[in-house]
Amino acid sequence: MLYDRLAQDLYTEICHVPIIDPHTHIDPRRPTARNLDEILGYHYYTELAHSVGMDKGRLAPGVDPRDRVRAVLYHMDQFDNTAQYEWFLEIARAFLNFQNSRLTIGDCTWLCDTAEQLMGLPDWEARVLQQSNIEKVFLTNDFDDPLTGFDTNRYIPCLRTDDLVFHLDKPEVRQRLAKATGVEAGDVAGVRKALGKLFEHFTRHGAKACAISLPPDFSPSPVSEQELGRALAGDDAADRVVCSWGLFWMLAEYCRSFGLPFDLMIGVNRQVYEHGVDQGRDLFDQRTSLIQYAKLFNAFPGVPFCISVLASGQNQELVSYSWIFPNVVTFGHWWYSNIPAYVEQDLRARLQAVPKAKQIGYYSDMYKLEFGLPKYNMYRRILAQILADDFVRTRVYTEAQAVELARLLLRDNVRRIFNV
Amino acid sequence: MLYDRLAQDLYTEICHVPIIDPHTHIDPRRPTARNLDEILGYHYYTELAHSVGMDKGRLAPGVDPRDRVRAVLYHMDQFDNTAQYEWFLEIARAFLNFQNSRLTIGDCTWLCDTAEQLMGLPDWEARVLQQSNIEKVFLTNDFDDPLTGFDTNRYIPCLRTDDLVFHLDKPEVRQRLAKATGVEAGDVAGVRKALGKLFEHFTRHGAKACAISLPPDFSPSPVSEQELGRALAGDDAADRVVCSWGLFWMLAEYCRSFGLPFDLMIGVNRQVYEHGVDQGRDLFDQRTSLIQYAKLFNAFPGVPFCISVLASGQNQELVSYSWIFPNVVTFGHWWYSNIPAYVEQDLRARLQAVPKAKQIGYYSDMYKLEFGLPKYNMYRRILAQILADDFVRTRVYTEAQAVELARLLLRDNVRRIFNV
Amino acid sequence: MLYDRLAQDLYTEICHVPIIDPHTHIDPRRPTARNLDEILGYHYYTELAHSVGMDKGRLAPGVDPRDRVRAVLYHMDQFDNTAQYEWFLEIARAFLNFQNSRLTIGDCTWLCDTAEQLMGLPDWEARVLQQSNIEKVFLTNDFDDPLTGFDTNRYIPCLRTDDLVFHLDKPEVRQRLAKATGVEAGDVAGVRKALGKLFEHFTRHGAKACAISLPPDFSPSPVSEQELGRALAGDDAADRVVCSWGLFWMLAEYCRSFGLPFDLMIGVNRQVYEHGVDQGRDLFDQRTSLIQYAKLFNAFPGVPFCISVLASGQNQELVSYSWIFPNVVTFGHWWYSNIPAYVEQDLRARLQAVPKAKQIGYYSDMYKLEFGLPKYNMYRRILAQILADDFVRTRVYTEAQAVELARLLLRDNVRRIFNV
Repeated sequence: MLYDRLAQDLYTEICHVPIIDPHTHIDPRRPTARNLDEILGYHYYTELAHSVGMDKGRLAPGVDPRDRVRAVLYHMDQFDNTAQYEWFLEIARAFLNFQNSRLTIGDCTWLCDTAEQLMGLPDWEARVLQQSNIEKVFLTNDFDDPLTGFDTNRYIPCLRTDDLVFHLDKPEVRQRLAKATGVEAGDVAGVRKALGKLFEHFTRHGAKACAISLPPDFSPSPVSEQELGRALAGDDAADRVVCSWGLFWMLAEYCRSFGLPFDLMIGVNRQVYEHGVDQGRDLFDQRTSLIQYAKLFNAFPGVPFCISVLASGQNQELVSYSWIFPNVVTFGHWWYSNIPAYVEQDLRARLQAVPKAKQIGYYSDMYKLEFGLPKYNMYRRILAQILADDFVRTRVYTEAQAVELARLLLRDNVRRIFNV
Repeated sequence: MLYDRLAQDLYTEICHVPIIDPHTHIDPRRPTARNLDEILGYHYYTELAHSVGMDKGRLAPGVDPRDRVRAVLYHMDQFDNTAQYEWFLEIARAFLNFQNSRLTIGDCTWLCDTAEQLMGLPDWEARVLQQSNIEKVFLTNDFDDPLTGFDTNRYIPCLRTDDLVFHLDKPEVRQRLAKATGVEAGDVAGVRKALGKLFEHFTRHGAKACAISLPPDFSPSPVSEQELGRALAGDDAADRVVCSWGLFWMLAEYCRSFGLPFDLMIGVNRQVYEHGVDQGRDLFDQRTSLIQYAKLFNAFPGVPFCISVLASGQNQELVSYSWIFPNVVTFGHWWYSNIPAYVEQDLRARLQAVPKAKQIGYYSDMYKLEFGLPKYNMYRRILAQILADDFVRTRVYTEAQAVELARLLLRDNVRRIFNV
Repeated sequence: MLYDRLAQDLYTEICHVPIIDPHTHIDPRRPTARNLDEILGYHYYTELAHSVGMDKGRLAPGVDPRDRVRAVLYHMDQFDNTAQYEWFLEIARAFLNFQNSRLTIGDCTWLCDTAEQLMGLPDWEARVLQQSNIEKVFLTNDFDDPLTGFDTNRYIPCLRTDDLVFHLDKPEVRQRLAKATGVEAGDVAGVRKALGKLFEHFTRHGAKACAISLPPDFSPSPVSEQELGRALAGDDAADRVVCSWGLFWMLAEYCRSFGLPFDLMIGVNRQVYEHGVDQGRDLFDQRTSLIQYAKLFNAFPGVPFCISVLASGQNQELVSYSWIFPNVVTFGHWWYSNIPAYVEQDLRARLQAVPKAKQIGYYSDMYKLEFGLPKYNMYRRILAQILADDFVRTRVYTEAQAVELARLLLRDNVRRIFNV
């Protein structure tokens, strides 16, 4: 909750801006949760519960969903200090009419009952969207997603390419690619043709972005046709690196020819904690630099690169590269940097040094629509406080101008940059 | 001094929590200073005085202790802006009844006289502990410390292992080890046996932790018995690296079998400033990552690793690794990060993203008990202000709940994690 | 604008301290702008305008200066959130009597007319200096600058050495050196003799510093006479590295013998954005450490090294190295770190942990005198707020003592350290 009056006023105004959420993991065919298990099954909660000692077995597929909820709730009082806990509390209050100020294991049955009842209502999705003031939602689609069966005007497809760049050596990925495109991607020409088919398929279905997450040591360079051909045929670690560079570069070329921005989510090491819960195994190495992407930014001046960094320490690089490179755009506050302490300092620097036209303020990264509200509220509160302190009180902007800046960050820049 | 009323109220309450200080360099046989020279001989003061131009010769062993004090005090007006100066001022006020707001060279005689008089009182130790509200104090014991002659209930032994991991190639260290354990550690079996004896000796005398400080480039892996054997017999740089890995891993194994947490203080380069004062030669390289310890954290799920990082820039990694790994615990604010600007931002992030059960708030790192009060007060003030702004004013916690969180950080988590 | 009363009072007092600006790019023979084009031609504006889509062609030399101004102003409303925009607005208000709170393209003609009229006045330079309260200004002189034709008491020469260290392999640089010194620098002895001539020439003309900017991966070591000789004769990448080390070390030796401080501006990668505007192509890699300079700091205890870091993340290293090494001094807030969000956190840490005698607060880095006022005002506001919150309100300093600290940072330390 904000306790500064001016910030609160700004927050109230900012909440009127309809959100276009430019990065989520929503399943458009089942966008909302059906019960509390689908809320507390979010990896943020299972990770934290596991981190304070919960046995992973209590989350196993065979377990009764209410028992899974109980297991997480039981451990929650050991992490009720966290921003993640606050998201859940805000969901319970905003959507489930929960009235108390703390959640305990004693609330489990009531919460589960209420959730099942409300989330089963036929207009639940519409209600959540309306209450959250969310208008459109970007998806994260596997490359072989048929992209049918949902409203692509509300749920905007986005081609996720991690598998193509880092796992094309795996037979199952090649098979999925062959099946999706009708092309056997056995050599460079085949791969190029197959990727082209994917871009055609995605843009025909309204896709507005290509996206990928990248490890901290990724440092792509163009590779020649011959090098890539040899690497595709090979199978050692060096071949895999050359493949990832060549395929990544090919994706950038397709972004250029199809007019799609390329979202780069930089800095994640996968599977670091081997025994972690599902999706709770990835961490990072702060020793990474955007200099690794200088060749890319130079080679594709016409492709907007929407950059997320995992380590807040890299934010100053992002600020500086966005200030200099016309095609580099700041893109939200990702994952381990998506807590108030880091959002606040990263956002302040961006607002002071990156042209306002080149900032995409936030995305929710959510798996279920219910998380849009608490996550965007967290961001809106931080934004409102910074606008109050750094812009309005210092007489840089009027209140109205400050709200206009917020509108750019939350809506207008998304529309313009992604051509929505 | 705090000037925010709510923060001040919280601070007052937090000061009532009896401290268990989980890392110090106290000599339990002489825990307090006997004169001002033992206060200003702390390397924080000699470093800063030397940094502004004091000749090292003025600290030489043969010099009259009052002249050493005079030398440091004389230079103090060039660093009276620092947090370290504030610690000293708070000691002078709290323990020596100093009444002014600034300290100058003109106060030297009065301070020395008063210190000698008061510190010589038979109940000085008890007074200091009582006034500081410190109940127990962890030590840093050399591996060959007999651990006798003091109250191990108040002064809790802790096995410091830097010498074993990094200097076992030195004959004097091997001799000390042989003398302490009765084992000639000539090969892997011998080393293992000797280390086992140390763990037996330490735990028998109430040791509650094993601790080590590590350079920024340390990246330990398990090594096979054969590799370690070859490395122990060799003497080049590569051998020393393999030895350090193997011995470090062996310590982690013993922590597991003896049920001791392992304190890792990560990131110090020793002897960087060759001509520095005693203990004032060490610095760091910010280019380090907790990914270097991923294998370790995976291999020893049952060992609590209490992690201190030297560079504040690494705090986000620490926050994230503690959030994910059940056996990674945040551990205080170390050395160059132990100034308000860094404690504040590091602590805010921890409070927002690490389960409260997994945070050990602070340790003093002190050599003399008199430093517990000003150092803990600095931390308690920062903590109180963050609790006021981020928790109480935002209605996340009531004041009482905020004080309970402080109790966890300052006392209860230490008790539980170290089994005190 | 400050809105905190105490901070504002401190700011007012701090503004009375006459500035000695220890690093600029002023041309002493034409220190002020003659028109608005020379204000908006500053790379901060051309970069930002280019970053939001302005065609570089609109800045070409043949273009009418008013059209260049119009091009930048036209794009300015897309970066009117930035600190750089604030600098320009403050120039327009302070020096051009601009009365509105926002600048738009509609103000172009009036601004251009007014600027031409006022900047053409014979006492313009004196007016700007007086209104900015700037007393002396350090320059950045090419090594072959004759250093004549200006008042070296007001405009203090400084030997810039990037060309010598990194480009001596280029024939034109060797020719310039030969012409400037009368020495053919064909071998080590020749180079040493030539550099000696430069130091004689510069110190004879009142130079007070030697300066250089360095890439993030620079890690100098002493090289033997023979090694340097071989490297000077060679022409591969390794030779160039050895040359840069040897020449850099030689400069440090001359700093020692001529009693000049050595300004090190650490961390810039040149020409990263190939298609950027003039001076808008340089960025950085956060992965750098002051440990790379440990040998240097140890080898030259008598040379003050005034250190600027490009990445705010390196500030803690700078704080710690300055706290420990007597010859390491913190030096301003450089370039990408010169925005309030980073100045604020970097300055707080310095004020808490670096002796006040060892901090040079700020430099403007300006090319035209008009920028001294808004840049120093930005710094003075941040400083005033920190002094209010961390020093005066906490009762560490009285207001008068806080202003004395500001005087050290802005004037007295510059005078003492650079012997002005």
